[in-house]
Amino acid sequence: MTGLIGIDWGTSNLRGFRFDAHGTVIERRVSPRGIATIEDGAFEAVLGELVEGWTGDRRPIVLSGMIGSRNGWREAAYLPCPADPVALAAATLGFDTALGRCHIVPGLAVDQPGRPGDVMRGEETQILGAGVRDGILVLPGTHSKWATLEAGRVTGFRTAMTGELYAVLLRHSLLGRLAEDPGARDTGAGFARGVERALADPAVSLLLFSARAEVLLGGLSPQEVAAYLSGLLIGAEIGAMIGSAHGSITMIGDPALSARYRTAFGLAGRQDINLVDGDAATAAGLWTIGKEIR
Amino acid sequence: MTGLIGIDWGTSNLRGFRFDAHGTVIERRVSPRGIATIEDGAFEAVLGELVEGWTGDRRPIVLSGMIGSRNGWREAAYLPCPADPVALAAATLGFDTALGRCHIVPGLAVDQPGRPGDVMRGEETQILGAGVRDGILVLPGTHSKWATLEAGRVTGFRTAMTGELYAVLLRHSLLGRLAEDPGARDTGAGFARGVERALADPAVSLLLFSARAEVLLGGLSPQEVAAYLSGLLIGAEIGAMIGSAHGSITMIGDPALSARYRTAFGLAGRQDINLVDGDAATAAGLWTIGKEIR
Repeated sequence: MTGLIGIDWGTSNLRGFRFDAHGTVIERRVSPRGIATIEDGAFEAVLGELVEGWTGDRRPIVLSGMIGSRNGWREAAYLPCPADPVALAAATLGFDTALGRCHIVPGLAVDQPGRPGDVMRGEETQILGAGVRDGILVLPGTHSKWATLEAGRVTGFRTAMTGELYAVLLRHSLLGRLAEDPGARDTGAGFARGVERALADPAVSLLLFSARAEVLLGGLSPQEVAAYLSGLLIGAEIGAMIGSAHGSITMIGDPALSARYRTAFGLAGRQDINLVDGDAATAAGLWTIGKEIR
Repeated sequence: MTGLIGIDWGTSNLRGFRFDAHGTVIERRVSPRGIATIEDGAFEAVLGELVEGWTGDRRPIVLSGMIGSRNGWREAAYLPCPADPVALAAATLGFDTALGRCHIVPGLAVDQPGRPGDVMRGEETQILGAGVRDGILVLPGTHSKWATLEAGRVTGFRTAMTGELYAVLLRHSLLGRLAEDPGARDTGAGFARGVERALADPAVSLLLFSARAEVLLGGLSPQEVAAYLSGLLIGAEIGAMIGSAHGSITMIGDPALSARYRTAFGLAGRQDINLVDGDAATAAGLWTIGKEIR
């Protein structure tokens, strides 16, 4: 094998990794050309700009993320769990381009009768690149993912809409109108209070209104509302998931958000959270899956 | 006593009841002049229009609702629970006007150290007018209220942001973009499925994303998303509250919303839900409190 080109192509970003034959990243490039910016299906042209100079030796190109969605280049159907890198490699959608042969990694699905369905696209690559064989992987964010790994296979996962709930409530609900300073959410006692409340009471829709009530009653300042709301939502997510989170917990995510989750994990009695850099996990995952493509 | 004038003055509506000396409503009037429409503090003028011809015998005027809030005519401080009609009457904010003496009913608060705070304003009057001495009163809506009555006293309550969550998620989240027909929420299997899921799993922030996932996986049609979301949120509210809802359950609310809650209560094993008309409960509550004002 002469190496590989790995592409993480999400809604708002495009990142490329050039691997040598041993899986070492020898060059990386970043572009703001997420799939939401691509007009007239110009995926190949945009990709060509990103990987310029990388394609001389016809390395295979492995792509993960929303590029495989309905709004992407080609739709790669979700692979049901459990799945490992070999299964994902076998399920990649391969097609020839002027840049070389491309392989889109499918997303993963939980699709069992009687259970809530779930999907991910892109996160499976980060999860398999985190260097964990057994344990829980947590990817905090707009749609937080909690995945279970057993012997290197993703056996299942759940999504919490924590980040999106936070954003829509702060922007569009009564609670947002109370929150004088949304930027204040990272500091102050409001966050810990929210986490502790939600850990004690999993019904978050019954806790949200307390933000308003306590401002009216004088127990919470308007400057604390955003932090308190963030704490309620993150606390509810962790409270709901931690009971079934056996074994090690590894977080992949940006440092500021991971720090907030780490505080909340601590309040839930879990100090032992491992952190993995998201960019490194993506690169390692693209290599891990890509090297299995036959 | 020569009777009473009862006023329910909310954010978007204004309703008046003229009572005879026995508490019978002899006339009722409705106006769209909620407090949100009042400019330059013209509360007395707007009230004067509503009660024209009613004030000749100088009956006391009792007002409940947002009229006693910070954005209303005069702010009446929340009365902490437990509270009964006599306590509310004693806590009314009285002041003289050209229309006669006005008495604003305070809202109620739950304000105990270490517990989530809660407030209501207007609902206390409906709750005390529902004709229930012991049991649970449920007022479904934007901010659903669950109150406990013991021997005619409101001993405590909790608010679920169910209706507001539904509205902001449908209008502003990813889920709303999936819901092709928000008007379809009252029909179809999506509602019951959402209720059952939420009753089985109280962590609603972990269930919301299943609406998106199941549309992508083909298990839910876009037309079912709004009903499913409504079911998840109502099911989560009922699931969280029903465990501590001992005794009779009485609902006060508009018929369409009450019917949806009744379906959800049935799925939770409670078929025995009493229904009380909201307008009648408001009138009875205004009389019940007003006749105790000294």
